[in-house]
Amino acid sequence: MEKRAELYRGKAKSVFTTDDENRFILHFRNDTSAFDGEIIEQLDRKGEVNNKFNHFIMTKLEEAGIPTQMDSLLSDTEALVKKLDMIPVECVVRNVAAGSLCRRLGVEEGTELTPSTFELFLKNDELHDPMVNESLCESLGFASQEQLAEMKKRTYEVNTVLKKLFDDAGMILVDYKLEFGVDVDGNIVLGDEFSPDGCRLWDKDTREKMDKDRFRQGLGGVVESYIEVARRIGLDLS
Amino acid sequence: MEKRAELYRGKAKSVFTTDDENRFILHFRNDTSAFDGEIIEQLDRKGEVNNKFNHFIMTKLEEAGIPTQMDSLLSDTEALVKKLDMIPVECVVRNVAAGSLCRRLGVEEGTELTPSTFELFLKNDELHDPMVNESLCESLGFASQEQLAEMKKRTYEVNTVLKKLFDDAGMILVDYKLEFGVDVDGNIVLGDEFSPDGCRLWDKDTREKMDKDRFRQGLGGVVESYIEVARRIGLDLS
Repeated sequence: MEKRAELYRGKAKSVFTTDDENRFILHFRNDTSAFDGEIIEQLDRKGEVNNKFNHFIMTKLEEAGIPTQMDSLLSDTEALVKKLDMIPVECVVRNVAAGSLCRRLGVEEGTELTPSTFELFLKNDELHDPMVNESLCESLGFASQEQLAEMKKRTYEVNTVLKKLFDDAGMILVDYKLEFGVDVDGNIVLGDEFSPDGCRLWDKDTREKMDKDRFRQGLGGVVESYIEVARRIGLDLS
Repeated sequence: MEKRAELYRGKAKSVFTTDDENRFILHFRNDTSAFDGEIIEQLDRKGEVNNKFNHFIMTKLEEAGIPTQMDSLLSDTEALVKKLDMIPVECVVRNVAAGSLCRRLGVEEGTELTPSTFELFLKNDELHDPMVNESLCESLGFASQEQLAEMKKRTYEVNTVLKKLFDDAGMILVDYKLEFGVDVDGNIVLGDEFSPDGCRLWDKDTREKMDKDRFRQGLGGVVESYIEVARRIGLDLS
């Protein structure tokens, strides 16, 4: 597999084309950003940890019947993935209130959300990823109703699989965001990544934050915490 | 009908209890506010104009089979209405992009929205009426799924009636917000008001703003414009 042009450079990952027109390479960098990219730092080994973490999770999701972009690990910081035409809308599920929800709606952090909530946000740094809904997505051409319904269904399926995975390992899956794309056959497929960069995970007993909030809140031990999360769910990254 | 205690004082209206436990009095004041109440001015005759305008529109909606809170006009600035337990969620339909939508999503003002969009906002001045969705409303206890579905259905029915009413009178109904409540029998009923304070109306030919944006944008002639809107749809307030 030959790596070719950088197609897209995100805040923590780059996407490269390859000599196979149906495959991309995701390169996980050590860049760690917060607050719409206002703060960016290099965290040693983060690219590797997230790459392997993501591969582990996507494999679990595939096993549960959820179509993902993952093909295979290529190197410490690279994964081979199926080519997707990404939909510019993030799906967020929350099991417990934290982060922007608390600020926006005045809800106390830690409030259990029953049933788990589902939100859509437009991926647009300049506009600070504004909240949208199905109606706006359809009328403004971000995604069709059918695509959004499938994304919502899959996002909740992911919740069933991952809530249990983390719960069994002594953690609470507080919230997470997923991104989907359309494959060459027109199917909605889970893309991007699932790692502690894009979710909140708390220790079940101590409620200690084990995710990217450690970075956002300057708590330190970010990558060490990601490695501990991995260890608990059965992935040795030490 | 005896007016009793002031139950609630909004930015432009007050709600009073009466000696009939199933009836409230809405008192339309001349107060005109913008930007979450940062700017408040007294506009001569606005209370009267909005009271009569609202009665006219609510009557049209009742005739079209949409249940509303309206009972009858009591005086120039007061209406007798059914008692409702208001749901703290505003329903917004947009036929054409304007206002906060343009700022939030980078859409150009005047862009036609097909199909017309539907959004929900939490009524909360302190939080600046944040956008919500059905899922958040359910899990945070603002409204049930059944109530929200009924509110959405009725909000679109209102659109069918009022788009035509204003179109026939040479105006574009750009967007509007509605508020609903639950009556003593548990039915979802349209409450609050429909007036140029809570919608956008443009002249079809000149695209001149004929609604509260005249106040927000310091264009002047606010109440005069409301009276002209009323005249065009067949209500003489001069």
